[in-house]
Amino acid sequence: MNLDAQWVVGFVDGEGLFHVGVFRHPEMAVGFQILAEFTVVQHERNVAVLYALKKFFGCGVVRRNHGDRMAYRVRNQEHLREKIIPFFEKHPLKTKKRQDFMIFRRVLLMMSRGEHLTPEGLEKIRRMVQRSSGG
Amino acid sequence: MNLDAQWVVGFVDGEGLFHVGVFRHPEMAVGFQILAEFTVVQHERNVAVLYALKKFFGCGVVRRNHGDRMAYRVRNQEHLREKIIPFFEKHPLKTKKRQDFMIFRRVLLMMSRGEHLTPEGLEKIRRMVQRSSGG
Repeated sequence: MNLDAQWVVGFVDGEGLFHVGVFRHPEMAVGFQILAEFTVVQHERNVAVLYALKKFFGCGVVRRNHGDRMAYRVRNQEHLREKIIPFFEKHPLKTKKRQDFMIFRRVLLMMSRGEHLTPEGLEKIRRMVQRSSGG
Repeated sequence: MNLDAQWVVGFVDGEGLFHVGVFRHPEMAVGFQILAEFTVVQHERNVAVLYALKKFFGCGVVRRNHGDRMAYRVRNQEHLREKIIPFFEKHPLKTKKRQDFMIFRRVLLMMSRGEHLTPEGLEKIRRMVQRSSGG
């Protein structure tokens, strides 16, 4: 199945999630770890579409999410920065999910500079994530 | 907001619903009424996208669904037959929602011939709807 760029934008406007998680991690100097992931979850009957997304973006994995739900997921920061983010910069989302994407993009930029490893940067990320609409 | 046809297909693959309802209706000869509707439901923060769909298809209404949910909805059979169905015939859905659409399309064709007003036609529609994946 080959996907059109605008179809991908429409589908992600509906079903995509740009998530930044802040987790306690005692072994890290700042005490917290940041995990950023782009996911699209579907009922298993639509798994073909998830594999088509994987092929389209050229990165990520398709895994069982829970129960009868499957997920296409990208967590690798390099793939997020070099493949996922540039695509949605070039092809803007049309729903309010665009706001989540903009925060996601800023967090990944900060992480590439190591800012999430300082207390100031971490606090800034936490505030940004709280302002997010939650997908 | 102007929408691209492929964006619309992708968004409806995620968020659209092609629903055929069979309701008891004692005043009708066959005892049941068929209601077909195409809907897209969103959180109210995305109401602009629903109005963009209304403009794109040139039919339907945007109404509050329940709570903080808004819906774009087309129930008018002529609009469904002449605007919604031809669009998705020309631009096929990519998820299993296409199966729901195919049943929806067949039911509307049967209704245009008055077949839903006969016991045989009604029974056929009921069986078709039961086979549907439920959106």
